[in-house]
Amino acid sequence: MEHYPQTELDVESAASFLDISVQRMQELMERRVLVPNWNEYQHLFRFEHKALQIDIGSVLVQKGNVFSLIRGFPKIKRAMLLGPAIKHNFSDIPRVAVEEKMNGYNVRVILLDGKLVALTRSGHVCPYSSEKANDLLDHDFFTENPQFVVYGEMVGPDNPYVPKKIYDIGSLEFFVFDIRQKNTGLPLPLHERRSLAEKYSFRQVRLFGEFDIQEAPDVVRHIIQDIGRKGHEGVVIKDPKMVLQPIKYTASQSNCSDLQHAMKVYNESGRDFIFSRIVREGFQSVEWDENEEDFRKRCLQLGESILRPMKESIIKVREGERVAEEFTIRVKDRATISRFEEYMRRLGMDVMFSEPKIEDNEYVVHMTKINKSTSDKTLAMWEGQLWS
Amino acid sequence: MEHYPQTELDVESAASFLDISVQRMQELMERRVLVPNWNEYQHLFRFEHKALQIDIGSVLVQKGNVFSLIRGFPKIKRAMLLGPAIKHNFSDIPRVAVEEKMNGYNVRVILLDGKLVALTRSGHVCPYSSEKANDLLDHDFFTENPQFVVYGEMVGPDNPYVPKKIYDIGSLEFFVFDIRQKNTGLPLPLHERRSLAEKYSFRQVRLFGEFDIQEAPDVVRHIIQDIGRKGHEGVVIKDPKMVLQPIKYTASQSNCSDLQHAMKVYNESGRDFIFSRIVREGFQSVEWDENEEDFRKRCLQLGESILRPMKESIIKVREGERVAEEFTIRVKDRATISRFEEYMRRLGMDVMFSEPKIEDNEYVVHMTKINKSTSDKTLAMWEGQLWS
Repeated sequence: MEHYPQTELDVESAASFLDISVQRMQELMERRVLVPNWNEYQHLFRFEHKALQIDIGSVLVQKGNVFSLIRGFPKIKRAMLLGPAIKHNFSDIPRVAVEEKMNGYNVRVILLDGKLVALTRSGHVCPYSSEKANDLLDHDFFTENPQFVVYGEMVGPDNPYVPKKIYDIGSLEFFVFDIRQKNTGLPLPLHERRSLAEKYSFRQVRLFGEFDIQEAPDVVRHIIQDIGRKGHEGVVIKDPKMVLQPIKYTASQSNCSDLQHAMKVYNESGRDFIFSRIVREGFQSVEWDENEEDFRKRCLQLGESILRPMKESIIKVREGERVAEEFTIRVKDRATISRFEEYMRRLGMDVMFSEPKIEDNEYVVHMTKINKSTSDKTLAMWEGQLWS
Repeated sequence: MEHYPQTELDVESAASFLDISVQRMQELMERRVLVPNWNEYQHLFRFEHKALQIDIGSVLVQKGNVFSLIRGFPKIKRAMLLGPAIKHNFSDIPRVAVEEKMNGYNVRVILLDGKLVALTRSGHVCPYSSEKANDLLDHDFFTENPQFVVYGEMVGPDNPYVPKKIYDIGSLEFFVFDIRQKNTGLPLPLHERRSLAEKYSFRQVRLFGEFDIQEAPDVVRHIIQDIGRKGHEGVVIKDPKMVLQPIKYTASQSNCSDLQHAMKVYNESGRDFIFSRIVREGFQSVEWDENEEDFRKRCLQLGESILRPMKESIIKVREGERVAEEFTIRVKDRATISRFEEYMRRLGMDVMFSEPKIEDNEYVVHMTKINKSTSDKTLAMWEGQLWS
């Protein structure tokens, strides 16, 4: 582990930047609302709790006594019933834009001391995502537009958080879905954002189009059905001016895919995570006015998504194995591997790393995360323990 | 509402009875670990928390300065895998007894001032169950065996908690499953308990038989499959001497029936309640080594149990109705109705009572419990609110 000089927060300047008293600023630090990042990023302070109207995951960056604030990802609320939700939430505008919601993990990218840095949803600097951002994104954007932060989705199979092979992506790609002002977090209007991203050849989430409020529910339904057949996730419905709050909606197949993963590791999955996926199926089925045959298909699909992965985990443990998840990362700089390993350890993730293999001038590392809770609970059942 | 003189707990005698200091006794009262019942039952103090190794729901009865303790229902742990659980938990005995676990609500019955009183699981005196107990049980048992408490299940359609038509019971019946000593809570051995109950013509839960540990998993599996086909709930596997802890196991159909009810009122159901039913299905499917066809049937059954009732509730609300549950009670003494109404109100249950109708010399009252949370949430979705 390398050693970096510790950076002290300049409390007075920070307080002045955030327009609060020095005492309040000190409180935020003492109560660990604001927490410094690690290593060379100790001048990046992430909000671990919401405070001062600033969302969790926002990051305060200190350079000398100059500050900037990288706002977190705004939570996008979910429609349960597309028609009523579109009508109610966008009643003041004539048209909505529909973009794809991809299944990966969120990062924000900024330029810091000459290099791109990728901040995760929680505001940590992810060394792996940072290497990828440097590879995938044109730095000129950041030098020419220092006032902006790029918000996007890291997607693909070489993904240490949400590995997905559903997008025909070889390794990992970054898809922009937002460009926002530093400090205020104000978003660029949709078309402005898309042209700007286009100018720098950034990959972007798909835009399905702009639709009249009246036709939008039907159009989105067909988009969702198509997306579902491909195994993709869903859509985000946006005010093209980005003034009204966007809303999200997902395909049944994506809900079921979430359930499959959750039930494979059933004892570590949040009950609320499982419940919410189930509830979405109920509302979609009613809104789309399914016939009995399609309804039974949906029920079978739901039941199988729940029971099949759980069954496989129980059998695996009976056979003496442990329930585990596998991930792959692929890097150009060998140092990124140890930095990512340290990062995982610091986050409290118990992950085993394979020896790196060289493929096409890159280092490929396989990671295994044992799902200890599910493995142990299942083994206890096979040993005749009682549930509770 | 009638007025009854308040009974003060004789703290010194109570402390002496429980073998604790007066100060500790006072603490238990002040912290509301021990809470008096209502009306003429203010000399019955229920344990609202576990303390002094005494389970929640246990009831301390004061008569003058003489005390007795009615122990709560011991929690019966659940087998997820029948074979391993039976082998592991009953390894020291050659045979286990298998009794039916019925789907109703638990009450304990004692004789108090010449009348039978039914205590619910939480230790409340239920006026309805008490009237039923007086009707259904031979009082001689209680005068001739004052040292015993009768533990059993109130089952049938005229049931204000768990109305079930699955047992071919006209109104409500009481099935004994345990007879225990006052104070210590020690149970009678199974066959002794069954002969004693038989002597007083008590109805009892069905005894399927006694089986060798080796054959028990297979036998229980067949019993469970048979029980499932009838829509009944499950079994409790017991040490005939009642020294080792019993274990319970339920049929898939009963798990699914629980899910049906929970998903009908999806927004008031505990996530853990739903999750635990799902998990049981996974383990049962693996242990019974189902073929693909039976597995898919189980998945469809699970999916339908989850989605169909939820769908019906969503449609109901779309049609302008509210999601509600219906119950019926049937009493001989008209006063029981208002006593039960007061009881429900005191428990914070928002239940509407119909005007009593007379049928066969009994008063029949229909009760409606509006599921406000599910109704409101569903309506909000139809109005275009977002989930969260």
